[in-house]
Amino acid sequence: MSANPLSFLSALGRILKGKPQVPKSLAGNPTLSLLMARRSVRKFQKRRIPDDVFAAILEAARVAPCTVNLQTWTFGVYDQSQWKKTFGSPMPFLGDRAVILFADMARSRAAIPNFPYKPLCELTLATVNVGIAAYAMNIAAEALGVSSVMLSETGKTGFYDARYLKEKLGLPHGVLPITTLVLGYSASTPKTMPPKYPLSELAFTGRYKKPDAKAVKRWYDEMSAGYRATYVTHSFKDKLNQYLGKADEAEAGLQALVLGKKEEFRKKI
Amino acid sequence: MSANPLSFLSALGRILKGKPQVPKSLAGNPTLSLLMARRSVRKFQKRRIPDDVFAAILEAARVAPCTVNLQTWTFGVYDQSQWKKTFGSPMPFLGDRAVILFADMARSRAAIPNFPYKPLCELTLATVNVGIAAYAMNIAAEALGVSSVMLSETGKTGFYDARYLKEKLGLPHGVLPITTLVLGYSASTPKTMPPKYPLSELAFTGRYKKPDAKAVKRWYDEMSAGYRATYVTHSFKDKLNQYLGKADEAEAGLQALVLGKKEEFRKKI
Repeated sequence: MSANPLSFLSALGRILKGKPQVPKSLAGNPTLSLLMARRSVRKFQKRRIPDDVFAAILEAARVAPCTVNLQTWTFGVYDQSQWKKTFGSPMPFLGDRAVILFADMARSRAAIPNFPYKPLCELTLATVNVGIAAYAMNIAAEALGVSSVMLSETGKTGFYDARYLKEKLGLPHGVLPITTLVLGYSASTPKTMPPKYPLSELAFTGRYKKPDAKAVKRWYDEMSAGYRATYVTHSFKDKLNQYLGKADEAEAGLQALVLGKKEEFRKKI
Repeated sequence: MSANPLSFLSALGRILKGKPQVPKSLAGNPTLSLLMARRSVRKFQKRRIPDDVFAAILEAARVAPCTVNLQTWTFGVYDQSQWKKTFGSPMPFLGDRAVILFADMARSRAAIPNFPYKPLCELTLATVNVGIAAYAMNIAAEALGVSSVMLSETGKTGFYDARYLKEKLGLPHGVLPITTLVLGYSASTPKTMPPKYPLSELAFTGRYKKPDAKAVKRWYDEMSAGYRATYVTHSFKDKLNQYLGKADEAEAGLQALVLGKKEEFRKKI
């Protein structure tokens, strides 16, 4: 699917019109407004996040809900110099702080002696909880005027580079990097929301409703048009190819770390 | 690890003291306060959630951030009668509405013709995004006075019962139920925060820091004490055994749905 000139213009028009739909009766709710206004930011000021603000952001994740209160998450926290020291390269997008979020089953395995080896259950459980923790940090940051972006690939920062991070950070079996949240004060907040599927496409009741091919094509055209309007140097297709080109290595890493090495599972912490 | 009478009392004391730690300088921030005050609720009033409120809750998930804006999520939405009709049993905890959140790769596979078959990448990517969407709904609900609880097992509602839900809802390959958010107006909000690891245990900088055995034991004792003080009929160990007893079936389901049936992957939507 690729955008022709006419569909590019109409897709661009749809993006520019696209904004969150909140009933008028609920306008003015501060937290709801914040959730709707939040945008991923990739350009930051050279301004430090105060320690108490950063602590409150981490605290929001610490108290977030999680399956059976197992807290299957660990946070690798870095400022610019710690990042440079650990990875030998500058923090992605030159954020002021970064948090690598790990799906971490090590504590649960240690706490529960008869914890069984169920690698996909563990991966699913720990990963959904990491999503919750990441968004808790994201929203707490927004509430304190701090912007952020969640990375899964850029700069070897997430599950796409699990093997690299395992080696670099000394991760034991059962600990998997999922995503990195890079934080800072925004130097340039995108105003336009990236193209979203309508709720009519995302939601169903009763039995599962399969995707509508037209809605899928619309979205792809809008993504392509948005990239064309935003970036000179690369297209949405380029961005996808960047991911797809690394998919073999990423999958091999996950297969090895999640499914392999059962003998490591019983190692004591 | 089990609590003896003395460690029960000291663990209970720690729980009762446990509360979110936010620097005094940041007190009064409405969204931050809401994130800290949120509790999972399992007892609801017989009071309907208005449609506009429910729509705003779903909208918060629709506009939430996600990997490459792929929106790898689908929401099965139910009121009490739709739930009963679909599952033949009352909604868990008699909530007023429920949302089953699915990790859904079907739209991405349809949009991107050369999308490769990388099952663990897909599972990880879609599942972390579902966590984000679930917490977005949770927080939007809280902002509108609606409480909720996220379920992964109770009442066959999440990845623990993936095969059952696949059959029941007609899920195609690449669509996996992860968790169910049950929503309603609280009839009884728990005041005490369940025992959380301190940030010093959850966070590290530089290389990974292994769990501290003492912190793990403390947490387990606190969970046991909290269950003992809250429930007459079952212990934390019982709750864990409920999960562990179903772990074989849950893992087999995930292995079959995530890793199996590669031939189904190429089916057109």
